[in-house]
Amino acid sequence: MKHLLGIEGLPAAELERLLESAAQLKSQPPRLTPTGAIVVNLFFEASTRTRVSFEIAALRLGHQVVNWTAQGSSQEKGETLLDTAHNLAAMKPAAIVVRHAASGAPAYLAARVGVPIVNAGDGAHEHPSQALLDAFTLRQHWGPLTGRTIAIVGDIAHSRVARSALHCFTALGARVRVCGPSGLLPAGIETLAPAVTRHTDLDEALAGVDAVMALRLQRERLDGVGLPGLRDYHRRYGVTRARLDARAPRALVLHPGPLNRGVELTSEVADGPESVILEQVESGVAVRMAILKWVLA
Amino acid sequence: MKHLLGIEGLPAAELERLLESAAQLKSQPPRLTPTGAIVVNLFFEASTRTRVSFEIAALRLGHQVVNWTAQGSSQEKGETLLDTAHNLAAMKPAAIVVRHAASGAPAYLAARVGVPIVNAGDGAHEHPSQALLDAFTLRQHWGPLTGRTIAIVGDIAHSRVARSALHCFTALGARVRVCGPSGLLPAGIETLAPAVTRHTDLDEALAGVDAVMALRLQRERLDGVGLPGLRDYHRRYGVTRARLDARAPRALVLHPGPLNRGVELTSEVADGPESVILEQVESGVAVRMAILKWVLA
Amino acid sequence: MKHLLGIEGLPAAELERLLESAAQLKSQPPRLTPTGAIVVNLFFEASTRTRVSFEIAALRLGHQVVNWTAQGSSQEKGETLLDTAHNLAAMKPAAIVVRHAASGAPAYLAARVGVPIVNAGDGAHEHPSQALLDAFTLRQHWGPLTGRTIAIVGDIAHSRVARSALHCFTALGARVRVCGPSGLLPAGIETLAPAVTRHTDLDEALAGVDAVMALRLQRERLDGVGLPGLRDYHRRYGVTRARLDARAPRALVLHPGPLNRGVELTSEVADGPESVILEQVESGVAVRMAILKWVLA
Repeated sequence: MKHLLGIEGLPAAELERLLESAAQLKSQPPRLTPTGAIVVNLFFEASTRTRVSFEIAALRLGHQVVNWTAQGSSQEKGETLLDTAHNLAAMKPAAIVVRHAASGAPAYLAARVGVPIVNAGDGAHEHPSQALLDAFTLRQHWGPLTGRTIAIVGDIAHSRVARSALHCFTALGARVRVCGPSGLLPAGIETLAPAVTRHTDLDEALAGVDAVMALRLQRERLDGVGLPGLRDYHRRYGVTRARLDARAPRALVLHPGPLNRGVELTSEVADGPESVILEQVESGVAVRMAILKWVLA
Repeated sequence: MKHLLGIEGLPAAELERLLESAAQLKSQPPRLTPTGAIVVNLFFEASTRTRVSFEIAALRLGHQVVNWTAQGSSQEKGETLLDTAHNLAAMKPAAIVVRHAASGAPAYLAARVGVPIVNAGDGAHEHPSQALLDAFTLRQHWGPLTGRTIAIVGDIAHSRVARSALHCFTALGARVRVCGPSGLLPAGIETLAPAVTRHTDLDEALAGVDAVMALRLQRERLDGVGLPGLRDYHRRYGVTRARLDARAPRALVLHPGPLNRGVELTSEVADGPESVILEQVESGVAVRMAILKWVLA
Repeated sequence: MKHLLGIEGLPAAELERLLESAAQLKSQPPRLTPTGAIVVNLFFEASTRTRVSFEIAALRLGHQVVNWTAQGSSQEKGETLLDTAHNLAAMKPAAIVVRHAASGAPAYLAARVGVPIVNAGDGAHEHPSQALLDAFTLRQHWGPLTGRTIAIVGDIAHSRVARSALHCFTALGARVRVCGPSGLLPAGIETLAPAVTRHTDLDEALAGVDAVMALRLQRERLDGVGLPGLRDYHRRYGVTRARLDARAPRALVLHPGPLNRGVELTSEVADGPESVILEQVESGVAVRMAILKWVLA
């Protein structure tokens, strides 16, 4: 049995043989394992759901996944984002899936690191795989999105999900209504894409829509927007059975998860017949498989 | 090189192509990767040993494993257990291995989530794969367990290991003696299965047994049971060379690990000829392979 | 659909079938999955870079990797290092890659556990795969190291990287100059291998070298060595453009990472034409593939 415990005492000939073996191995095409490519999940923010969805998508395609989380990593030792990414890219993965708290981090890396980058959520900027799975889920029900109207409700200002969805839905021909407390609606949001309107009244925003997407609310975002608590938020912006019946009886209900039941929507709605929330999760794997195929092609 | 950095600016035709590709991928049978099935480890309690044992078991069968730990997950964001499990099940793994601090959590999920569930330990309820590996280890030495007597010693009250072992050993024809401080022996434990007796004196419990299983003791459990410290516990309930020689000279010694050497048993016993503790760990992989084959069949 | 939720209520015949199935599975050769061997990363210290490099190396060879980190493991429950390793070895991985804060931990385990051990860094002792990738990188530029001179600069006292490099470079025929504050140069370091000299002046150490390796500095190591802060350290021991131009204009620059830019070296040097830092990382995967092939042979 051989161990490698140290260099001290290893004969030079043995060292040479190891180095020669490494040289041969290095000359092999680096991106493929015997069973597929290596995809790295580089997550600077915790996200079990999205990480696992990408991981399962890669495995289903026959690839292998290596998880690199900021926790317990060289980030804690003060390494820059770019140095971390350059190091990782030097190990020649086939693609890097990145989540980062800073808007633009994936684009910053894509411009500098010679490896395909998939944005798994960057700050309040975009979360493109989420938007694609949202659109996919709606298409499974409707066919093309052309002519449909979709309301996005909640904390638009801090939501990369809202921003990506808005671009995706309008690019595919749908109209989008964004709705929330005015303090959580970015100024000019309605100019971000054509066919976007802005609403602070939920009943108005829901009237006649084909689908409504409720966004996850973080409690601390309510500070200073004139809604003292979650109950107040729910009263004004919660998606309920009664509101849907009155305003949009055939609307599909989406949510990116994780749910705050009783805040963004009631359990009755989340678990009701119009909810496609778990379909979103299921379709997420297929959409991420398509994304990985696309960047690896 | 292609990146996916956002939706903004992607042409509608490119979005359509991605969605069409996802639709084709979704129509494939979801449970198999090119090399096997996907097994998810869903661990709400830390457990490297059991998790790794299931992971190696799955890999040996040619499957792939995805680890979902509560730490850094949506649990921290207030998602319910059921929502987490529904989300995971929507990603269509072939099986979910669950550890949870709440007794009954795996059964609760099995009744609601359409994916095979393997209980990897739930509260003070059961730890069935541990009991099966204990029985397996004993059978390797003895053949059938019929007519054998096995003592289980320690904190019975809080031990899912004890509860599963007691059911497993008695179902396979053995007699079981549970032994510990009366404050750590649940009332009526001897009625839980036939052929179970209850003891507070270790010498009495050991007399003539074929095997003794020492349970891991958590220091904080001693509060209020009349044993001021670990040394007192060891004096009354520690499995020692002298006790085995006097009472059960041919008994095999089991322990579910991790060991508190000098508390539940002495190092002399843990590392002695009658110890089958590492055999338990080795057999654990084969037993978990059998369990995964069984639920995946 | 079958679940395994507990033992209670399972018929004895079903238990017997499971145990019989386990017995058959246990009789199979344990070290191979259908697609390769199982390599375990057993990391008691955080290290994303080295862990991922070994993980990618194993995957490229067609093996599977199981990560066992001290965090959230039975180490927290007071299990000894040896018991953890014996447990892991009982699960029959093909090799264990170990990082530990205690010098000698891998050798200690190799002497006791019947599984090939690869030292991925132990205390201030050795980090052999790092030294081999350093030597590999230099050979890619130079061919044989014979007759070359390499300076290693920084906190030699606490550096396993320095210790392994020193043995590796001298075994391969190079001369080594170690350089740093005298408080961070171990007494007698120059007697550790032939062809080693000791320097406290960087300009003297750099004069005419073929390569310089800067070591990562941990701020807290400066206490009591007469250098009040990082700026003072950089002024005396930082590798800069000016110093290289003046003393070793053709020298290659190495660093084991992660970088403290502006401390051990300037960004100008780290990203300059003489820097082989990312080549080190890239070659690290090939070297670790060679190491795994070597111990698994």
